[in-house]
Amino acid sequence: MSGALEEAVSRIRPPDEEVRRRTALLLDAKTKPPGSLGRLEDLACRVAAIRGEIPAGALSPAIVVAAADHGVAIEGVSPYPQEVTGQMLANFATGGAAVSVLARDAGARLVVVDAGVLSPPVLDGVRSEVVEEARGTGNIALGPAMALRVAVGLIEGGISLAQELADDGIGIVSVGDMGIANTTAASAVCGALLPADPSLVCGPGTGLDERGVARKVEVVRRALDANDLGKGSIDPIATLASVGGLEIAFLTGVILGAASRRVPVLLDGFVTGAAALVAATIAPASAGAMVAATRSPEPGHSLVLDRLGLEPLLDLGLRLGEASGAALALPLVRAAIAILTDMATFEAAGVSRA
Amino acid sequence: MSGALEEAVSRIRPPDEEVRRRTALLLDAKTKPPGSLGRLEDLACRVAAIRGEIPAGALSPAIVVAAADHGVAIEGVSPYPQEVTGQMLANFATGGAAVSVLARDAGARLVVVDAGVLSPPVLDGVRSEVVEEARGTGNIALGPAMALRVAVGLIEGGISLAQELADDGIGIVSVGDMGIANTTAASAVCGALLPADPSLVCGPGTGLDERGVARKVEVVRRALDANDLGKGSIDPIATLASVGGLEIAFLTGVILGAASRRVPVLLDGFVTGAAALVAATIAPASAGAMVAATRSPEPGHSLVLDRLGLEPLLDLGLRLGEASGAALALPLVRAAIAILTDMATFEAAGVSRA
Repeated sequence: MSGALEEAVSRIRPPDEEVRRRTALLLDAKTKPPGSLGRLEDLACRVAAIRGEIPAGALSPAIVVAAADHGVAIEGVSPYPQEVTGQMLANFATGGAAVSVLARDAGARLVVVDAGVLSPPVLDGVRSEVVEEARGTGNIALGPAMALRVAVGLIEGGISLAQELADDGIGIVSVGDMGIANTTAASAVCGALLPADPSLVCGPGTGLDERGVARKVEVVRRALDANDLGKGSIDPIATLASVGGLEIAFLTGVILGAASRRVPVLLDGFVTGAAALVAATIAPASAGAMVAATRSPEPGHSLVLDRLGLEPLLDLGLRLGEASGAALALPLVRAAIAILTDMATFEAAGVSRA
Repeated sequence: MSGALEEAVSRIRPPDEEVRRRTALLLDAKTKPPGSLGRLEDLACRVAAIRGEIPAGALSPAIVVAAADHGVAIEGVSPYPQEVTGQMLANFATGGAAVSVLARDAGARLVVVDAGVLSPPVLDGVRSEVVEEARGTGNIALGPAMALRVAVGLIEGGISLAQELADDGIGIVSVGDMGIANTTAASAVCGALLPADPSLVCGPGTGLDERGVARKVEVVRRALDANDLGKGSIDPIATLASVGGLEIAFLTGVILGAASRRVPVLLDGFVTGAAALVAATIAPASAGAMVAATRSPEPGHSLVLDRLGLEPLLDLGLRLGEASGAALALPLVRAAIAILTDMATFEAAGVSRA
């Protein structure tokens, strides 16, 4: 591992169990039957334990959405043309996309990242994090997605962004992705790292029919064969470079960087799940900093969530990506912290206990 | 039925299917794969169809939480002393309760209603809707909860409040309850109206152990016997008067009043579910105006949701009541409307379609 990556990984600590206990005690003193706010209380405890302290107020949120193109799109694994990746990157930056709307609604800072789009828009709101001019991956069905040092460079870029956000006072980060054909790359990454047969991992993505899914399974199978994966090898960075995506590499870095600074990471759907699986394979303790926002209908996502020990907050059949689910869960986190900081205790309110 | 009740019921129309179709078309023109925001899109369509028009912006929300005491508390069906109902009513009004915090967080107007608390606090923030000085119900295990005209009066009070909120420009109402022992009353109402055996309906409420639940089942069985219910009689108002609660009657009115003014109602947990079941038995079309916020762990709640054809937005194990779940779902509704009103179309954003 490189210096910046190694240093971030070495700083990742598990959630603070003492803080979790203190948070639970504080919640039990509030005017409600113990545990009656269910998973909202678990969420408050988890966030406090990740932060390493009981929050004194709402956490300032950011949403990072990273986009990149995928050479495997040529295999016909998405109903959308590849140019949509760049068009949507522009849509994020100009405020018309779902995540733009949801970020405004949640009061979150939106960071739009070009991690390797073929024809990126030239817009103020787009942050280029392209490494070595790697725009678009190679077709993973034929060979590697990117050079190993590109993968490492993107991870380091993600770490650096997360640390910059932490320095700016951001207290929680939602992550999301955009990239035509990227559920195919995510399926290959998960197939290799879980490991799991591609037929158990692949789903319809943004709208494949049954035949399309069968073709996708075959493409993922070819990708694993062509890159000599899925036979027990679990080098996460090599796997990422072989069959991953440029945005998946960058998001892996954002997750590791946030974990290294005790910033909770709200994961979106399947593609961010693949990045989380890579992060947790590099640094198992980073899973402690993750909160699953949503359950994707992609079958591989449930396998990843089980592996990471995460139960999603929402199950609304979201399959858009671009951090839409991770943005929708931000109000739940804010509510959980508000319960912790603003509710009266039995003592203060003069309410009798059971 | 009385005049005001009859008039409200006569005004309730089913959701506007033409508006639902137009909303779905509008969503399909937005820059995302069709249906990829899953149940958030269904929610936008449902809210628009209830309103009878596509909202032009966020709906101004209110939360109505109604409290009352229950004579059946003497049967030991709650771990909390009865005085907690009045203490919590004060806590709602002074801002320390969960729903107070969640209402502020969601930017909702909170209306705190005394529907018949034994020792109500004298506070500016409490709205008295007590009918004929009925404070606390009779012990339903021995006889009727309240006189029929008290039930009707409370329903009319709820209708009147909902219509007042609609006149004030409120576009969506969350409802919630408070009342020590009120899951026992809700269980009896559901046992009678579904109908279902009490053993299939009763749960631990705010914290009964297994023996406590068994005792509660017996109390509900006695209540149905003592009031000659559960044998196919489905007069909803008579059932409410026999085994319901004063706050359940009031909330039934709020639901009917909102439905009569095309204001969507976000239901909370099991007790508001019982009120919704009464409302839908009085006026079947009122179910079209309901949105289920949350699934309560009380077994009877799932039976009620099935009967009403509702799938909850959240499933976080909430069992507090007091509109906490219905408040937590407000940001999802706001997000669904923001998607509808603020997202760019493929045309406007210059994004290619599939």
